[in-house]
Amino acid sequence: MTAAPVTLEDVRAAARRIAPFVHRTPIVTSRSLDRACGARVFLKCENQQRVGAFKMRGATNAISLLTPEERARGVVTHSSGNHAQALALAARMLGASATVVMPENAPAVKREATEGYGARIVPCAPTQAAREETTAAVIRETGAVLIHPYDDPHIVAGQGTAALELLEDVPDLDLVLAPVGGGGLLSGTAVAATSSPGTRVVGCEPLGADDAWRSLTSGQRVTAQEPDTICDGLRTVLGELPFALLTLLERTKLVVEPSAAVGVAALLAGRLAARGRRVSVILSVGNVDLRAWVAGLRPGRGPAA
Amino acid sequence: MTAAPVTLEDVRAAARRIAPFVHRTPIVTSRSLDRACGARVFLKCENQQRVGAFKMRGATNAISLLTPEERARGVVTHSSGNHAQALALAARMLGASATVVMPENAPAVKREATEGYGARIVPCAPTQAAREETTAAVIRETGAVLIHPYDDPHIVAGQGTAALELLEDVPDLDLVLAPVGGGGLLSGTAVAATSSPGTRVVGCEPLGADDAWRSLTSGQRVTAQEPDTICDGLRTVLGELPFALLTLLERTKLVVEPSAAVGVAALLAGRLAARGRRVSVILSVGNVDLRAWVAGLRPGRGPAA
Repeated sequence: MTAAPVTLEDVRAAARRIAPFVHRTPIVTSRSLDRACGARVFLKCENQQRVGAFKMRGATNAISLLTPEERARGVVTHSSGNHAQALALAARMLGASATVVMPENAPAVKREATEGYGARIVPCAPTQAAREETTAAVIRETGAVLIHPYDDPHIVAGQGTAALELLEDVPDLDLVLAPVGGGGLLSGTAVAATSSPGTRVVGCEPLGADDAWRSLTSGQRVTAQEPDTICDGLRTVLGELPFALLTLLERTKLVVEPSAAVGVAALLAGRLAARGRRVSVILSVGNVDLRAWVAGLRPGRGPAA
Repeated sequence: MTAAPVTLEDVRAAARRIAPFVHRTPIVTSRSLDRACGARVFLKCENQQRVGAFKMRGATNAISLLTPEERARGVVTHSSGNHAQALALAARMLGASATVVMPENAPAVKREATEGYGARIVPCAPTQAAREETTAAVIRETGAVLIHPYDDPHIVAGQGTAALELLEDVPDLDLVLAPVGGGGLLSGTAVAATSSPGTRVVGCEPLGADDAWRSLTSGQRVTAQEPDTICDGLRTVLGELPFALLTLLERTKLVVEPSAAVGVAALLAGRLAARGRRVSVILSVGNVDLRAWVAGLRPGRGPAA
């Protein structure tokens, strides 16, 4: 991530800008979840955001900030996931065309969802190099503006609006837990939380995909991690994540993508000094492949068994 | 149901009485659900109520209204389901003992949940006669007060508080859809909706369990219906209910018990004159047996296929 100068005022301006286009998502609480975690837990339901993910916030902010001339050229990104759908929907609402470079092995359901929001899909080989080359070719041909999924200050400011709403709705939070993928949500959350000096922001990632932890502790950005480890890597976290998914389902009736449950898993496993404190977890994404998700629950392997 | 004189003021008093013990549940909206239904849809998330069901409201109200002497004798009910859990938790919070008469073939998970809230379980043969006889025996032995799951004005007033909150949170509703089981939720909703003259309340039941419809159209209360038809009878509704469950999961990330999705199924299937109107569906219950629920989705059989 570039050292982008995102300020609290940027996040506040993003919130005003995107309000007509995104949901103010609910806060859900559960006393049995509180009991299981030993803390007062407030779930910020970005899994119920439009397109099922917080990504809608950043994409809408970024496209809103384009000049009319840039909007006319359209936007492009490379993503097989929620950013692609968010960009497609935000572009359609804001009158821009969207092109999404997607690995040719991306699940059909994701391709169809993105096309359903009106984006043009350009397939590429499933490597980082191919993604970047194909994206560059689209930019050369169409003049489209690249909207990176996270390495963009307007995206970061947009993602921070979830925490801004959270801090308005729930006073005196001690901790806010956000998952770390590319870092856009976590960065935006950290900026938003500067409005609340008593609140500490904690990034959460599963052991099998701890590139942020390794980057920060080594002082070197880890870049060699295979993407999608979080989704495919349930078995690497020793059943804590399936247990968190089951707990959320049973106690709050909410379906979340596995990576969105990492914060809850950390709380349930007692990996944070959260006892007796007021803690929010940003449930970042709700989109799941139902069959894979159910298989991934593996209830026999978690502490719930 | 007895012709109980439940008034709007009873529902308002119940709301004040139970407020410390129940959740004010969120309202969830989804533009894609709106599009699929051709209406503006507001989901009242009683699936996220304590114990996972609106039943918590009525049980808390009924026990709150007992005299100190009655509370000391404890409460009893016959139920294998959500009312049992709600009664158990409400009794524990309000300092009463609870006995639940439960068919001996009730799922272990339900028995354990009810015991987990501190109730004593008395098993009986799985017939209506055995339930009633066993309950009468408990009352003879202990002096416990019977809290019927729905045929009780205090239960009806309590269940009506969900719609009261809904009408406070969402102005100008044209329709409120509530499932009909025993009729407690629907009756309470109808009473609450008298506060909003422009709002019409519609009871929803699947074709395979349409005892309320047959009772009202025949003028004779239909009593011969096997219970649990709603849960076991997914296959009788031609895939509309699995489609509604899938739609709720995909579009709102909410898990609901099949009977709680009947209103959504009716909207999606165009069975109501709802086009262009503001419609709320009370998602009454979230408790599901995950494996059965997933099997019940049968996505290949619904219109979603």
